[in-house]
Amino acid sequence: MALIVQKYGGTSVGDIEKIKNVARRVVNTKKAGNDVVVVVSAMGDTTDYLVEMAEKISKTPPKREYDLLLSTGEQISIALLSIAIHELGYDAIAFTGFQVGILTTKEHTEAKILDINTSKIFNELKKGRIVIVAGFQGVTEDGDITTLGRGGSDTTAVALAAALKADLCEIYTDVKGVYTADPRIVKTAKKLDVVNIDEVLELASAGAQVLHPRSVIFAKKYKVPLVVKSSFEDDPGTKITEEYMEGLLVTGIAVKTDEAKVSVIDVPDVPGIAAKLFSLVAREKINVNMIVQGTSRNGLSEISFTIPKKDLITLKGIEDEIKKAVSCSKVTYDEDIAIVSIVGVGMRSHYGVAATVFNVLARLGINIEMISTSEIKISVVVRKDKATEAANALHEEFKLSEVEIKTE
Amino acid sequence: MALIVQKYGGTSVGDIEKIKNVARRVVNTKKAGNDVVVVVSAMGDTTDYLVEMAEKISKTPPKREYDLLLSTGEQISIALLSIAIHELGYDAIAFTGFQVGILTTKEHTEAKILDINTSKIFNELKKGRIVIVAGFQGVTEDGDITTLGRGGSDTTAVALAAALKADLCEIYTDVKGVYTADPRIVKTAKKLDVVNIDEVLELASAGAQVLHPRSVIFAKKYKVPLVVKSSFEDDPGTKITEEYMEGLLVTGIAVKTDEAKVSVIDVPDVPGIAAKLFSLVAREKINVNMIVQGTSRNGLSEISFTIPKKDLITLKGIEDEIKKAVSCSKVTYDEDIAIVSIVGVGMRSHYGVAATVFNVLARLGINIEMISTSEIKISVVVRKDKATEAANALHEEFKLSEVEIKTE
Repeated sequence: MALIVQKYGGTSVGDIEKIKNVARRVVNTKKAGNDVVVVVSAMGDTTDYLVEMAEKISKTPPKREYDLLLSTGEQISIALLSIAIHELGYDAIAFTGFQVGILTTKEHTEAKILDINTSKIFNELKKGRIVIVAGFQGVTEDGDITTLGRGGSDTTAVALAAALKADLCEIYTDVKGVYTADPRIVKTAKKLDVVNIDEVLELASAGAQVLHPRSVIFAKKYKVPLVVKSSFEDDPGTKITEEYMEGLLVTGIAVKTDEAKVSVIDVPDVPGIAAKLFSLVAREKINVNMIVQGTSRNGLSEISFTIPKKDLITLKGIEDEIKKAVSCSKVTYDEDIAIVSIVGVGMRSHYGVAATVFNVLARLGINIEMISTSEIKISVVVRKDKATEAANALHEEFKLSEVEIKTE
Repeated sequence: MALIVQKYGGTSVGDIEKIKNVARRVVNTKKAGNDVVVVVSAMGDTTDYLVEMAEKISKTPPKREYDLLLSTGEQISIALLSIAIHELGYDAIAFTGFQVGILTTKEHTEAKILDINTSKIFNELKKGRIVIVAGFQGVTEDGDITTLGRGGSDTTAVALAAALKADLCEIYTDVKGVYTADPRIVKTAKKLDVVNIDEVLELASAGAQVLHPRSVIFAKKYKVPLVVKSSFEDDPGTKITEEYMEGLLVTGIAVKTDEAKVSVIDVPDVPGIAAKLFSLVAREKINVNMIVQGTSRNGLSEISFTIPKKDLITLKGIEDEIKKAVSCSKVTYDEDIAIVSIVGVGMRSHYGVAATVFNVLARLGINIEMISTSEIKISVVVRKDKATEAANALHEEFKLSEVEIKTE
């Protein structure tokens, strides 16, 4: 008998029929003799609907009340799922983050989990019950309801699995698992049966929407055994492992189109300028992704970086402050970019991957505007309308549609 | 400076514009120098929508999960109202029943308030904040979320006013106050400026939908100063008082059409039969309203009583058990009835009110099927399609459209 944590995302519980489907899956896992803890997101568009109502009232709703509002989405879905499981003749009990003691920091809308009180869950499991926990939410020590930000339900599931020392954490989604590329962009993309956790982390950060980076970091830190599966099909999914496959140079390609490029033009090429610039950006809690500093010309240089498009308005608000701090001539913004990344642990021990990438894009006449590399990832910024062509060409070049690795 | 508890019902917060309207009213009360605690119901149809989803999954949803589901309705409206108040530049903080410590019994869907932890509210008031509390909900000592049943938000408001020793509890609704009759039924109905609390209690029980009986009982017990007002118009509303007006025989007329008549035919006229019958009905938690036992004929009698229509299905489920227990020949059900009640503290000291009622109905040829009287109320059961005619005739007979009592 194993203890399994299952997480179902918003599309998996998108309507009443889908909730019933999830109930059947959960009950089958229980029937197979396992203890089951289920983490659920809000139903499909519920969160959007709640956000829309808040925005009709205020452009800047107080974050504490915003969290109080948004957390109802998961409370609705856990209650409905519990009702559906009862209807199948199984005993279940649903808990909000508050009720199950998911203690978080006080940073509303982006709280971090500090602790989980597992005794309540273990007590219910002992009674033979299926335990359902609201994803995405927690509570501060003062009793205020918090939310965990994007991908929060994944984080709840992984954190619960870690706290409960679960044998397995299954992340259910609307695709079969982790793919070599987004099948909507690259038609020949293949599902990976196994993938290394560092690769998943880079892919997630690079825009692959299967798992949220924070949950992957958590899973890596606490060695939570993770599987990504479809809630609609019977497929073993993708197993996420610490091991990696010898001989495989590149595992996946990701395309990110929700970032914008910011260029700070004609900054004096003296020490401390970048520090000043990015301290200001950090103060506004804007996450910077790629950073490139151009070579100096006449003592002046150019710094370009990418940030989430949603943060552009905040950044524009401090443009004057930035200009004053770094003495630049101007700041430009470009929203028509895409970041194409290739990821693979195999790169560590192989030269020439970057060169291959650049060659492929040069052959297609695609201009590379920024380059950034990590030990297992190469990212390039290209025009947004060239991203699909670039991703497909790279997918073919690295023979990703021929990937053939089976779980043991 | 007074401490005022205001309660806004579902129609008062029916949409975003109405929530903004409530926010303005609350802020005006605050601006006038008062401490304000606001109790809010779920927005308009939210509860119906949640109920509908649950019913699509199960005809008998487990009550704990049902409460968990329903309580989200108020959580949404308190969050939105708090956001709207912030938008007006005032500081507000919203609390669920759970967060503010509204401790209840464990009877899910019909829990009773046991205690309210007022220190959290007083702390926030001290900081100058407007405190918003979710109506209709509480929490058990085990941390399970409960709901208080019909009219629960009124009960929350009155209980809070009692616990906080508020100077005033204002119940905002979509009408101007308590009327001599439902203006939809009796066109000449007048708003009462003052009404005695016992009369309100009888009127509420008799079907007047302004205040829920439970909240009135609570207000009476803890001497909470109550006012019923419109959230859409500026009108002093109806003040509910312990005093009563000399010289006024009848204060109001109420019509109730949500009950059905049940007749148990040919029961042996021996002691203990009624006890057996109503013990069975009570076991099913069905609220019996009027009870009439006919005179005996050949040692056989007939017992008729009225119950909420929604409980008919439950009652029919124990029909065989009833037949066996009381040895009756059959049980009949009639949903086409109306209960017309006239209420007035003045009846206590005046004879002939009942006779007047019977005369008026006889003149109109309206058959009286059941009669029940209390010290300050006379209720009659008539055919449902005669209720409006009866109510209007009685309203005129007792000159209720000429009522003229002003608050001092």
